[in-house]
Amino acid sequence: MKSLFQPVALAHASRLLNFGPTVLITSRHGDIHNVMAAAWSMPVEFTPPRVAVVIDKNTYTKQLIAQSGYFGICIPGAVIADLVMELGSCSGRDGDKFSRFQLPFYASATGAVPLIEQGCSAWLECRLIPEPHTEQQYDTCFAEVIAAAADPRIFANGRWQVTDENRDLHSIHHLGAGHFLRGTPLV
Amino acid sequence: MKSLFQPVALAHASRLLNFGPTVLITSRHGDIHNVMAAAWSMPVEFTPPRVAVVIDKNTYTKQLIAQSGYFGICIPGAVIADLVMELGSCSGRDGDKFSRFQLPFYASATGAVPLIEQGCSAWLECRLIPEPHTEQQYDTCFAEVIAAAADPRIFANGRWQVTDENRDLHSIHHLGAGHFLRGTPLV
Repeated sequence: MKSLFQPVALAHASRLLNFGPTVLITSRHGDIHNVMAAAWSMPVEFTPPRVAVVIDKNTYTKQLIAQSGYFGICIPGAVIADLVMELGSCSGRDGDKFSRFQLPFYASATGAVPLIEQGCSAWLECRLIPEPHTEQQYDTCFAEVIAAAADPRIFANGRWQVTDENRDLHSIHHLGAGHFLRGTPLV
Repeated sequence: MKSLFQPVALAHASRLLNFGPTVLITSRHGDIHNVMAAAWSMPVEFTPPRVAVVIDKNTYTKQLIAQSGYFGICIPGAVIADLVMELGSCSGRDGDKFSRFQLPFYASATGAVPLIEQGCSAWLECRLIPEPHTEQQYDTCFAEVIAAAADPRIFANGRWQVTDENRDLHSIHHLGAGHFLRGTPLV
């Protein structure tokens, strides 16, 4: 697959996570690819662009990230909210989730992570900054963003353009127990 | 002032932040009270309930928290979005913000932090877990939630109940540059 997204300047990467969307975390080690849902992530620095994500130390995703040193953050749109719940409710240890859910992806430019665009508004490719203490104590992984891109229908010229026309790509925000909020313009 | 909120069980405290709202961070040291806006926060653990918040090491808030060891997280509703921007655009070093904006607060049960209910949907009282490395390197403060409460008009029986009737209290999510999303039910 080829990306249809437009690159996002690294100086603007924090804007992709600034508003607290629920995200998908992608990972790869060798021939193994995986994806999980994560409600707990945030930027921590504008420049260099850095993020923190909570990834339980017992997950398959964490194992793959520890081995490869990289992960992807894909921001799902409202149109795939049900899929996000399903991806968050099973483990890649029980079978490849991309195949199981017929979810297309393509390799990042570095080849380090799979990236999802279908149903998503943006992605960030991240390099883990090893912090053994916070990973162990708080399941919190720090990382530097090395590339980012977004769907120009909803993020262009460094800004989100959330409208009635791009409802499929509106952000989702997990309240718990499978219930989500939709991010709509504040008027 | 007296609280009109209802206590939230600590086991449910993570639900108050799970969906990525923009928040207000309150602090107190001695006679000094302060409040700032923060877009970057997340839960990191359900039990014990723990959170991470990015608070720039140069802020007055960070200075007060380092001295007292406590801070509050108040979740503003859409009705005070403009006030949130103003609170995030000035420093308590230049004068007390509660007075300047005529913003009422009351003291938490421990007395450690001021809490805001007017225009807010919920609050969490937090005890800093000192982590000098992450505070210095990533401006990231870890803390344990020691008390929480919410407005029963929008959070009751451990669950958010977001409806058209409580629009004033809907969460806000900062896109950047003063633009917010509103958290509305995903349908």
